[in-house]
Amino acid sequence: MGKGRVEAFTDGVVAIIITIMVLELKVPHGEDFSALVPLWPIFFCYILSFINVGIYWNNLHNMFHTVQRVDGRVLWANLHLLFWLSLMPVTTAFMGENHFAEVPVAVYGVDLAMCAIAYTILVVMLHRLHGQDTTFAKAIGSDRKGKISMAAYIAAIPLTFVSQWIGIALYVAIAAIWFIPDRRFARLLDK
Amino acid sequence: MGKGRVEAFTDGVVAIIITIMVLELKVPHGEDFSALVPLWPIFFCYILSFINVGIYWNNLHNMFHTVQRVDGRVLWANLHLLFWLSLMPVTTAFMGENHFAEVPVAVYGVDLAMCAIAYTILVVMLHRLHGQDTTFAKAIGSDRKGKISMAAYIAAIPLTFVSQWIGIALYVAIAAIWFIPDRRFARLLDK
Amino acid sequence: MGKGRVEAFTDGVVAIIITIMVLELKVPHGEDFSALVPLWPIFFCYILSFINVGIYWNNLHNMFHTVQRVDGRVLWANLHLLFWLSLMPVTTAFMGENHFAEVPVAVYGVDLAMCAIAYTILVVMLHRLHGQDTTFAKAIGSDRKGKISMAAYIAAIPLTFVSQWIGIALYVAIAAIWFIPDRRFARLLDK
Amino acid sequence: MGKGRVEAFTDGVVAIIITIMVLELKVPHGEDFSALVPLWPIFFCYILSFINVGIYWNNLHNMFHTVQRVDGRVLWANLHLLFWLSLMPVTTAFMGENHFAEVPVAVYGVDLAMCAIAYTILVVMLHRLHGQDTTFAKAIGSDRKGKISMAAYIAAIPLTFVSQWIGIALYVAIAAIWFIPDRRFARLLDK
Repeated sequence: MGKGRVEAFTDGVVAIIITIMVLELKVPHGEDFSALVPLWPIFFCYILSFINVGIYWNNLHNMFHTVQRVDGRVLWANLHLLFWLSLMPVTTAFMGENHFAEVPVAVYGVDLAMCAIAYTILVVMLHRLHGQDTTFAKAIGSDRKGKISMAAYIAAIPLTFVSQWIGIALYVAIAAIWFIPDRRFARLLDK
Repeated sequence: MGKGRVEAFTDGVVAIIITIMVLELKVPHGEDFSALVPLWPIFFCYILSFINVGIYWNNLHNMFHTVQRVDGRVLWANLHLLFWLSLMPVTTAFMGENHFAEVPVAVYGVDLAMCAIAYTILVVMLHRLHGQDTTFAKAIGSDRKGKISMAAYIAAIPLTFVSQWIGIALYVAIAAIWFIPDRRFARLLDK
Repeated sequence: MGKGRVEAFTDGVVAIIITIMVLELKVPHGEDFSALVPLWPIFFCYILSFINVGIYWNNLHNMFHTVQRVDGRVLWANLHLLFWLSLMPVTTAFMGENHFAEVPVAVYGVDLAMCAIAYTILVVMLHRLHGQDTTFAKAIGSDRKGKISMAAYIAAIPLTFVSQWIGIALYVAIAAIWFIPDRRFARLLDK
Repeated sequence: MGKGRVEAFTDGVVAIIITIMVLELKVPHGEDFSALVPLWPIFFCYILSFINVGIYWNNLHNMFHTVQRVDGRVLWANLHLLFWLSLMPVTTAFMGENHFAEVPVAVYGVDLAMCAIAYTILVVMLHRLHGQDTTFAKAIGSDRKGKISMAAYIAAIPLTFVSQWIGIALYVAIAAIWFIPDRRFARLLDK
């Protein structure tokens, strides 16, 4: 089974997710600056989620580049990842509209953790299909960065109930290690 | 007429349907766990519909792989299927927001039955165009699984008025026979 | 300039328009059959618009098949058509939610007329670019069916104020002459 | 890294942005002409934004045509541009629903200025990657039109607080210099 249409479908779904998130940004009521002030948490969450979805697109882009074939299991593992990504507009809005209350911040963490788990499952399925000595296996390596992210998201969920700012700090930090193009840092984590 | 653009258009529409379903998941009001509890039927319906649309994408993906050409009738049969699939976000929300009341569960069944009928019409149109001894005809076979699904969805509609849980059990069961990668089961049904 | 990306972009926009129309179908309040009855005009309008957008996709599909190149004018003529098509979800909902009142039916007619005019402009731009003796020019022919549709839509607007049912009958009739695969009829109009 | 999927993803996101803008056009309440009158500022803003997004698609289309390769920086610079473009449906609705009040007009200008800045950053990143004597560098030239637009948008923001009509006049004027196919004008600016 060719990877072409799976790639195209994945790109399509991710493009739609990243764009419809903006539909959760309600048009502010009022016409002066004071109408914009209460929007800052929603806007901050929107930026964070835009970067997170962008990171997934980037990673899927690079990963599928080295993939040679797909089967039914990979297809469903990929749909499973898209399922949790598709919830991001709702969990983002839930966190933003409740001004970083504990439960919404934890729910956002659950979604991020499930995305990270789904991504790891997808990598495992592709690993099995391709075997150890393929371009795919070499490109992915030990996926240390992926595993650290997954662990950090899972840890963030209970820590949110100590203080939600720990959760948010972790979400920002994990986005940063993927986003910031620091080559030494990347080398340290990816070796 | 080439199949390429029909495939791309179909993929695009299915990708949009599977993603905009999430827009029917309204952001919960309130900021503690009790705000999430009333959402479980909506969330359950969302998962069920995500899997159902995923199954259609998977089947269309495999089917179009063996298709060699399309004509005007195939094109409209395909749009007819996309029409009933496009209603899935609304019928899903109708069932979820009314907590599995009888009429909404039956309406969801009507939509699933129409999708199954539209899929069968599409298969028949493609069969006519390709003839008996083609790769397409061999790949599709007797489409026993498709016909069983169609019959079960049609049966589910009146049974919903005996108890809506019979309807829901049937919807879940049919999704399961497509979703669970049980090879013996597949062999039994597909021979 | 290659036609590939214009085709892909057009397909993408049309796929989104045909799918987001369903977002204007509000989830019915209530859980019995009586909740569905007031939806019939909205549902009827949805079917009509789905078929109309489907016809445009079909025609654009066939037309771009014979197109050899595009320039800046064609690109903007195409965007102009997409603009009026993109208004179809709103004009459809306006007509359906007001149960076929005169003004909404006329506004829907204005949108359809503008789509037909935009389509004709696109054909003229492509004609100029390709010249008389090309595959494109032969495939399009005199575009009699397109011109009849445009005239009928323009006529429908004032006739709506005699009775809105004349307008609706014309919209259905024009959709039917494109939709019904009557070869004799097609030959008569297309010669 | 190939440019193909970046192009396809960009086209997808822009197609979705240009189409979901219409979802901010709320279906008018009422069924006579008076229900349509208060919509004119919203409709005017919709046309302006449709043209602006169309211009970006056009420019990205032409620019990526001459691009030979992309790297991680280009990918994020492109996502950065898509971020500001994705806010256009919200800023458009904010300006239209508040009937061109000063703050919303200025906010719309901020979004347009950020799009222009993001576009310039993308051009700089691509310039660095391709070097001086490539087809890309020659096709882009000095990008005088892009720089004038960026300066005009930045200037428009404070001028809006003198009068919002200055802001709107500038937005329309900049759209016009990209939109109107005046070859002498283009030559003057692009040399």
